[in-house]
Amino acid sequence: MLNIAILLYDRFTALDAVGPYEVLSRLKGARVTFVAERPGPVAADTGMLSLVAEAPITELRHPDLVLVPGGPGQEEQANGPVLDWLRGADETSSWTTSVCTGSLILAAAGLLAGRRATSHWLALDRLAGYGALAVSERVVIDGKYVTGAGVSAGIDMALELAGRIGGRDAAEAIQLMLEYAPEPPYHAGSPRTAPADLVSRLRIGSRHPAASQVAS
Amino acid sequence: MLNIAILLYDRFTALDAVGPYEVLSRLKGARVTFVAERPGPVAADTGMLSLVAEAPITELRHPDLVLVPGGPGQEEQANGPVLDWLRGADETSSWTTSVCTGSLILAAAGLLAGRRATSHWLALDRLAGYGALAVSERVVIDGKYVTGAGVSAGIDMALELAGRIGGRDAAEAIQLMLEYAPEPPYHAGSPRTAPADLVSRLRIGSRHPAASQVAS
Repeated sequence: MLNIAILLYDRFTALDAVGPYEVLSRLKGARVTFVAERPGPVAADTGMLSLVAEAPITELRHPDLVLVPGGPGQEEQANGPVLDWLRGADETSSWTTSVCTGSLILAAAGLLAGRRATSHWLALDRLAGYGALAVSERVVIDGKYVTGAGVSAGIDMALELAGRIGGRDAAEAIQLMLEYAPEPPYHAGSPRTAPADLVSRLRIGSRHPAASQVAS
Repeated sequence: MLNIAILLYDRFTALDAVGPYEVLSRLKGARVTFVAERPGPVAADTGMLSLVAEAPITELRHPDLVLVPGGPGQEEQANGPVLDWLRGADETSSWTTSVCTGSLILAAAGLLAGRRATSHWLALDRLAGYGALAVSERVVIDGKYVTGAGVSAGIDMALELAGRIGGRDAAEAIQLMLEYAPEPPYHAGSPRTAPADLVSRLRIGSRHPAASQVAS
């Protein structure tokens, strides 16, 4: 058995959690449990979708793999029961992981100090502020600490984990079942390839924590 | 306003729905509503995750964009109220769309007869059986009918739709916020690039509708 806990909290980003879930749940023997401070529906950042947390964090203290998604609600997780739970889970976990700004929660729990880690491209400065060695890579592995870049990077991170946990054949079978052969119609997925004026605009916009509907 | 209805049903595949939601919900003026025959939590195919349907299908008869995800539960949707709802929605929709085997539901409703369309690579035969012109492409656009290939293709499909609805700049802004610059660690995402023995094994396995935990 491989017990996987995915943390939910108010205003998380849904794809951060569901991308890795879709990959990791297909590993043989995997049991994914969505957990939150309180069980029940948890609203994502858009206000247009809720995922159900099946169990309170207190019921799953020692998962083999813990995954923390990002989202604008992460700032409110930076103290309290969630951080205590993460520290406890990390004591016995085989893998402690995050997607997007979920790494800021791991960092707030003190788990990334001095470690190589990544986050959403707009949050790398904040990650470094916690004492992590913030790097701009899609998936960063430092021992059992695995962090993914923004939102969609969770899928790549989970495939990397699937290969390390279940072997290459298992990871490839999952990739093929999910038909994960991406063909983005645009090339704007990274600040290195996106139009420079767009990158600037989003950098400025991110200083005004406004609507999630960023598109003009 | 752009009213988007995403259909949920028992044993849908979560990423089929959440990938496009994450893209389309960020279009300016978009309002995504998850709908199902009955509102409330709807269990995904793994049995490890539920998404909340906010409204019954009867409450959103005329969305601008309707999206049908795939999943092993699709077979039970092939008659009854969902097909009636889809036919009604399609009468006035600007876009009628699906991801993965969701196209089999659109086809069962009679909406893809004679049209170019796609589906999960293991379901293309079944799609052709409904009289659609089944093609093996990641995203297929035939007028207002837009279909995506398996599971993760919904993200590419939604970016394509975002560009057509909101313009290239809007789509690129969403892509950059989701940091969608994929780097799969393996190259097994398509039957054309995956190891041949893996493709054969999954083809054989798909004739025995068994566990979703496909990885060995």
